[in-house]
Amino acid sequence: MNKFFKTSNIALRFFNGSVQLPAPTHRVRQLCQLAGSIESTDESRKLLEGVVTSPANYVPLTPISYLERAADVFGDRTSVVFGSSVKYTWEETHSRCLKLASALIQLGISRGDVVATLAPNVPAMQELHFAVPMAGAVLCTLNTRLDSSMVAYLLKHSETKMIFVDQQFLQIAQQALSLLSKDKTIKPPILILIPESNDSSPPVSNIHEYENLLSSGSSNFTIRWPKSEIDPISINYTSGTTSSPKGVVYNHRGAYLNSISAFLCHGMALMPTYLWTLPMFHCNGWCMNWGVAALGGTNVCLRHVSAKDIFESISVNKVTHMSAAPIVLSMMANASPNDRKPLLHKVEIMTGGSPPPPQILSKMEQLGFGVSHGYGLTETYSGATTCLWKPEWDSLPLEERAALKSRQGVKVLCIERVDVRDPETMENVPADGKSIGEIVCRGNTVMSGYLKDVKATEEAFKGGWFHTGDVAVKHPDGHIEIKDRLKDIIISGGENISTLEVEGVLHSHPAVVEAAVVARPDDHWGQTPCAFVKLKEGSEEITSDEIIKYCRDHLPHYMVPRAVVFQDLPTTSTGKVQKFILREKAKALASLFNTDRKV
Amino acid sequence: MNKFFKTSNIALRFFNGSVQLPAPTHRVRQLCQLAGSIESTDESRKLLEGVVTSPANYVPLTPISYLERAADVFGDRTSVVFGSSVKYTWEETHSRCLKLASALIQLGISRGDVVATLAPNVPAMQELHFAVPMAGAVLCTLNTRLDSSMVAYLLKHSETKMIFVDQQFLQIAQQALSLLSKDKTIKPPILILIPESNDSSPPVSNIHEYENLLSSGSSNFTIRWPKSEIDPISINYTSGTTSSPKGVVYNHRGAYLNSISAFLCHGMALMPTYLWTLPMFHCNGWCMNWGVAALGGTNVCLRHVSAKDIFESISVNKVTHMSAAPIVLSMMANASPNDRKPLLHKVEIMTGGSPPPPQILSKMEQLGFGVSHGYGLTETYSGATTCLWKPEWDSLPLEERAALKSRQGVKVLCIERVDVRDPETMENVPADGKSIGEIVCRGNTVMSGYLKDVKATEEAFKGGWFHTGDVAVKHPDGHIEIKDRLKDIIISGGENISTLEVEGVLHSHPAVVEAAVVARPDDHWGQTPCAFVKLKEGSEEITSDEIIKYCRDHLPHYMVPRAVVFQDLPTTSTGKVQKFILREKAKALASLFNTDRKV
Repeated sequence: MNKFFKTSNIALRFFNGSVQLPAPTHRVRQLCQLAGSIESTDESRKLLEGVVTSPANYVPLTPISYLERAADVFGDRTSVVFGSSVKYTWEETHSRCLKLASALIQLGISRGDVVATLAPNVPAMQELHFAVPMAGAVLCTLNTRLDSSMVAYLLKHSETKMIFVDQQFLQIAQQALSLLSKDKTIKPPILILIPESNDSSPPVSNIHEYENLLSSGSSNFTIRWPKSEIDPISINYTSGTTSSPKGVVYNHRGAYLNSISAFLCHGMALMPTYLWTLPMFHCNGWCMNWGVAALGGTNVCLRHVSAKDIFESISVNKVTHMSAAPIVLSMMANASPNDRKPLLHKVEIMTGGSPPPPQILSKMEQLGFGVSHGYGLTETYSGATTCLWKPEWDSLPLEERAALKSRQGVKVLCIERVDVRDPETMENVPADGKSIGEIVCRGNTVMSGYLKDVKATEEAFKGGWFHTGDVAVKHPDGHIEIKDRLKDIIISGGENISTLEVEGVLHSHPAVVEAAVVARPDDHWGQTPCAFVKLKEGSEEITSDEIIKYCRDHLPHYMVPRAVVFQDLPTTSTGKVQKFILREKAKALASLFNTDRKV
Repeated sequence: MNKFFKTSNIALRFFNGSVQLPAPTHRVRQLCQLAGSIESTDESRKLLEGVVTSPANYVPLTPISYLERAADVFGDRTSVVFGSSVKYTWEETHSRCLKLASALIQLGISRGDVVATLAPNVPAMQELHFAVPMAGAVLCTLNTRLDSSMVAYLLKHSETKMIFVDQQFLQIAQQALSLLSKDKTIKPPILILIPESNDSSPPVSNIHEYENLLSSGSSNFTIRWPKSEIDPISINYTSGTTSSPKGVVYNHRGAYLNSISAFLCHGMALMPTYLWTLPMFHCNGWCMNWGVAALGGTNVCLRHVSAKDIFESISVNKVTHMSAAPIVLSMMANASPNDRKPLLHKVEIMTGGSPPPPQILSKMEQLGFGVSHGYGLTETYSGATTCLWKPEWDSLPLEERAALKSRQGVKVLCIERVDVRDPETMENVPADGKSIGEIVCRGNTVMSGYLKDVKATEEAFKGGWFHTGDVAVKHPDGHIEIKDRLKDIIISGGENISTLEVEGVLHSHPAVVEAAVVARPDDHWGQTPCAFVKLKEGSEEITSDEIIKYCRDHLPHYMVPRAVVFQDLPTTSTGKVQKFILREKAKALASLFNTDRKV
């Protein structure tokens, strides 16, 4: 038996509070001051005699807590799997993150410093999502599709002190550092190499290597907890569809809360097995690195996303959940039978970016997947709404189910408000499925702001709401459906034209692979739709007149494109069409085409 | 089509921000000040150019948001069912709560005022959990087992302005108000009657009636949102096992977060159907009124808790989850076959207060229930730990499963820390399943403090931890198991004796109905165990020697009670044994008994 109750006198001493601590009164008051940034309001003070804010009852929210708890509660369960070579438990992950955090500090990282990454979904990325915040630093996960000049630009903009680079992207990173070194006003970041495998060739000399760095740290490290829960935890650069990338700052509170929203809208229960096809660099992997820790789940890492590897991994690791871009769904649905493996249980997939088309949805369901659809922006820590499925919809025909699933849906748990409002009056539009407005959001899972861009932050938050720039309708059941980007919508003769609707018809044409519609200035109508189309191989004989006729058969006349241009579409590093380039082209072409003014 | 994009000029005007609002810069700055109690720390400021706190990205956490969202997202789904007469949707509940909140304000309730209840699990109780906070007031749900003098005492202590009383408890409330009226320094609260049914006889004249009051309100009411998330939301009086009841103050932040912990540890997914047998007055029903709203679930109300009604309700309402005290489990397990109905699906039950005994667990599993066990205190918003079940335990034999389930388990998601520590050094005890220490907690789901009792609050929070007063061990897998209340543990000849262990042996004696063990002062040993036992009817011939012999056969000698007293046990209004009364009695008896000092 433990000794501390050896005599009743000792036990009583404890009751009287005479432990080795300052006297209770003084201590509690002091602690209140420590946590004192939170103050209750005057009106409630009348109640508050005896009520305090103390470390006993106020702790800044941070997803670091999820890792601490995972080590305590799920310590012997698998945290990370990567191929057949890497398998950690939550206790090991916790210890590794402590070591890594302490190593960062030994290398000179201090509170608020930025630590960047350029890496795919490897275990180091999962660890950095905890270790960097545990060192009090801010994680900046760069898109691996960026070129070296953009990497250099973002490293400079974010004042990155250290960058973790996967061997696959070492050349790009080194070119970026070389570009940076020409600017004598800045000190280039320290580069840490993440080798392709632990057995790979010895690292380039003079470069820190991930496992070596980690081993140099100590698991006795004391975590640098955030002092305020709105201290920054990460920076996520937008892909820049319209302008140069903006640095979206997330804070600890938002990351904590959005992790909950995320695992709930993924339909996760305790101890899920989550396959990473969604890039961890994208909105911090929709906060799912943190969310999986909260549930004591297993992260299945995957360096290359291919249908064969996905089906193989699902089978080997008994995957229960995954998130995937629509292109990945399409890849899976169209995989050759040799690459597929039958599912032994239902796998839930959350997709986002664009709605799942009915044929993909149907195919995925046949294969045994459940597909949900969410909507969000980098500025809302990813998911702001989800097409929350009601059991009574299960029995509807495929087309109806696909239509319901294609809606952006209803707000997730921990964002406070998602409304569709008339941006002039800020009044809600009627929930009639027809009236359009802008999607605006408010809540703790909206970004802290754009890094070093006060003007853009103020513009985004005008009126105390985050303005998404997305145009949508609200259905009678409260579900939101996007009609267009605010800047993409075409106004022709006073009528609004949703470019998404026109693109939907173009996509349904059997010869069309990709399509984008933008406004072309028109003296008479103000604007008319102009289509850019990429045809399937072997369909080159299709003419613009045939496409226009097809659109006339499927759309009101005023929505039909007046011009069709055949070409590959320009895209961002995340695969989004850069409409601003197409708009410029449409403008330039305006004088070359004859405009048919008959509707 | 909506008109606001009628011309591109109008659309462009919006882009430039020329809406009817102050200029963005001024506006954002102003809003920052409004939300300005949250400040980021100096170290992180270096990053913060462009980063703001605004209503767009900071909203005080409050469970009121769960109701707002439920109305938006689950508007047409059933919120509350009560017998065959009451059935509301979330949209209706939302509207009713708005009306009720506005009616409270019309009757003079202002921010921070206390509104009490004395009612069983009827729909009004569910509504008051939202309507009272929506009026900016503080909910105080009194235990319905209290007598009128205790009700009067608590109404006075909490300075209650209004009390909602179910017809069943009208007499007690009126007696309490009559007692209060003798004190000329206070103004007795306004009484609102909740009739037993909508068709019941007209209310006593001169008393407000619930539905009338609600009808007098307006659903256009603007919610009085908390100004700070640590503003109080409720007061829960402890049952007073050791002293007079203490008023435990909960805040909006804690209630929001513990609702999440609660539904997660209940294993709930979206849209559960939750049967209320746990009193809503108890720790705000473990925060499940708020938690069920967060998930868009259905609350099944039940006025009287009987096995027949429970099985009937599960069958009629397709209940998926419930919480229940051990006594309710026992009632269900021992129900006559006539009162039972077969379950058509598994029903998950969370129990707390004491571990489920193996025979009850076995019986409940045979009936189709899943039983989990949680631990917490009023001071931790109810559940602080839960016996989190691992799938590999499913195949263990019943006794082993029962032993695992009887442990208090691991911390829930949103409390930060639950440790077992040596209260002298505050160091963690080894996780060896043997070393004992006190359970201490820290986190956002620990109370704000004891109302009007600074000293007790400071004592409870000494060292920046909430001291539970429970003595426990920590097992190698991190699960906590309670051994005793700190004040109940007996120290005999330098050895710790867990009264719970001795009571466990006494309970296993076939003639014993109830048993409690306390310390009796002893000149030689310091303390020795003294047992108080209630025998089954017809077992009156059992002697104390027989009981002592039985204990000798099942316990180490030093743990065997030296005296056995046969009597009914004194209990609190929540059914907890009042050991302080027994300790007084044992002390008085010390000189009357001969103490056997041979071990």
